Amino acid sequence: MAFKSLDELRAACLDLSAGSDAAADAVARRQDTLTKPRGSLGKLETIAAWLARWQGRDMPRLDKVKVVVFAGNHGVTAQGVSAYPSEVTVQMVANFAGGGAAINQLARLAGAELAVIPLELDRPTGDFTQTAAMDKADFLAAVSTGYDAVTPDLDLVCFGEMGIGNTTPAAAIAAGLFGGNGRQWAGRGTGVDDSGLARKFAAIDAGLARHQATLADPLAVAANLGGRELAAILGATLAARHHNVPVLLDGFVVTAAAAPLAKLHPEGLAHTLSAHVSAEAGHRQLLEALQLAPLLDMGMRLGEGSGACLAVNLVRSALECHARMASFAEAGVTDK
Amino acid sequence: MAFKSLDELRAACLDLSAGSDAAADAVARRQDTLTKPRGSLGKLETIAAWLARWQGRDMPRLDKVKVVVFAGNHGVTAQGVSAYPSEVTVQMVANFAGGGAAINQLARLAGAELAVIPLELDRPTGDFTQTAAMDKADFLAAVSTGYDAVTPDLDLVCFGEMGIGNTTPAAAIAAGLFGGNGRQWAGRGTGVDDSGLARKFAAIDAGLARHQATLADPLAVAANLGGRELAAILGATLAARHHNVPVLLDGFVVTAAAAPLAKLHPEGLAHTLSAHVSAEAGHRQLLEALQLAPLLDMGMRLGEGSGACLAVNLVRSALECHARMASFAEAGVTDK
Repeated sequence: MAFKSLDELRAACLDLSAGSDAAADAVARRQDTLTKPRGSLGKLETIAAWLARWQGRDMPRLDKVKVVVFAGNHGVTAQGVSAYPSEVTVQMVANFAGGGAAINQLARLAGAELAVIPLELDRPTGDFTQTAAMDKADFLAAVSTGYDAVTPDLDLVCFGEMGIGNTTPAAAIAAGLFGGNGRQWAGRGTGVDDSGLARKFAAIDAGLARHQATLADPLAVAANLGGRELAAILGATLAARHHNVPVLLDGFVVTAAAAPLAKLHPEGLAHTLSAHVSAEAGHRQLLEALQLAPLLDMGMRLGEGSGACLAVNLVRSALECHARMASFAEAGVTDK
Repeated sequence: MAFKSLDELRAACLDLSAGSDAAADAVARRQDTLTKPRGSLGKLETIAAWLARWQGRDMPRLDKVKVVVFAGNHGVTAQGVSAYPSEVTVQMVANFAGGGAAINQLARLAGAELAVIPLELDRPTGDFTQTAAMDKADFLAAVSTGYDAVTPDLDLVCFGEMGIGNTTPAAAIAAGLFGGNGRQWAGRGTGVDDSGLARKFAAIDAGLARHQATLADPLAVAANLGGRELAAILGATLAARHHNVPVLLDGFVVTAAAAPLAKLHPEGLAHTLSAHVSAEAGHRQLLEALQLAPLLDMGMRLGEGSGACLAVNLVRSALECHARMASFAEAGVTDK
């Protein structure tokens, strides 16, 4: 898919299915026959129904699970907003290729294929305190790349990101969409000190002021204040909805990247689950703004899709129990 | 191990190692060299250090993981405290053998061997509103059975339980150890209605009154108000400490069963992690009383070791990241 205009993309963001009530209901009915007190598997029961609804299958499956990590570089790092230099983005992409990063271990353990998609790392986005992060063509290209990364054969997909400085655009998007300023949304990212944090606040506030006139349009927020990997995640989240692929959202950056979809459509993120709440300052309030309840709270703040990958096992557990438990009748267990 | 007297068992409960500082420190040092911002894997980093401390190994392993489910029947069911009849205990043990229960699916997914140990299901404990649940010999036999279920070759162990009516003795133990009454500790278990819940409150209060004189002794609390599967879990938790096997605690019943060890020794449960907080009413406050922070909060209330088993993947994730990630130097990534 190559989106040719913001209007075409906007129309695609409004063209969303509601998922299959029938499949979700079939799962709920079967759950009540299985050898356990009704409801006693808690979220594992609702996850199974969620999986069925968005796959559109009475009996969901998890044969093909994929983690897609998008990488980008950010002009706003010129404002001194990160503890690491931008060269680390490409170095970490090499580390992903070599199998040495956290996400390599977590994807393997989750039984998930890992794909890494670098987005023009040698051409950072514009510094949003001075200009738009991306012009329309750049933004649409990144969204389209993300869209194409999700294929209909997948049963579940996790999105991750790598991009030195990218908690700054994430916080700027959150503030642009939901109000507030840098201080309310920005955290320490990879670990900036107090003066670095003050620079983040200032950069976000400057970006919000510069792009004030366009903040009412969620796609303009994503283009002006975001980054290529965030735009790609927006496109990928949209593609997943169009292709009936349930999504596990990772941490602050991924959630902020997908958030414009929820602003454009009230049920825009219904096919996603928040895998975890990260330790990055703004994530919890962003999840609250999006009415997403995180599955895990592990104090993680790494990105890469690490939190999403960790939650794959919870989804697998939900499905294994649902698909393979015996009913009261089959097991000869006296029901209540 | 056959404990022959309460004094012998009490002495064993006081003879506890502090774990290996050296191994935990080695893990923490290695964590700081790996390609991630320091501390950014959150609890995955502390779990790796915990595993090292209690295995006593600089590089922990998870080759042998086991789930042990203890089953028992309870005289206090005569007070109408459960939504299901006692015959379900033995039926569910058969369901475990047939592979049809939730724990079968979760143990397989966790890569854990499953063992089920029924404890004299045809001879329920005494009704603690009328008499001691177990006399000394019965109690010591159950503790000893649990102790022998944990062997030193294990790398991690999960305990689970099955016993119709056993949230009532669990709440009674919690109240006996930490104060309060039935209303403060009892919940709906497998799903009793309001009148059933009122009967639970009354049964617990009657048990506390009858055994008031012995509540200062944690082992007497476990014997008088507990049950065989709970006593076995106490013994198994003690054996794990003696054998350097880290433990994942399951829900309310397992936590209550292990709690006497924390009352006997201030660091009695340091080798355990709380895998999850269950939806059963008293569990959260019991974890607070024990200063245990649960890893998961999935709204589960099934027992069987299901929550503990779900957390095995978090421990595996911690170890995989720790053992297999590249260092900054190995990967050629610029450090902060």
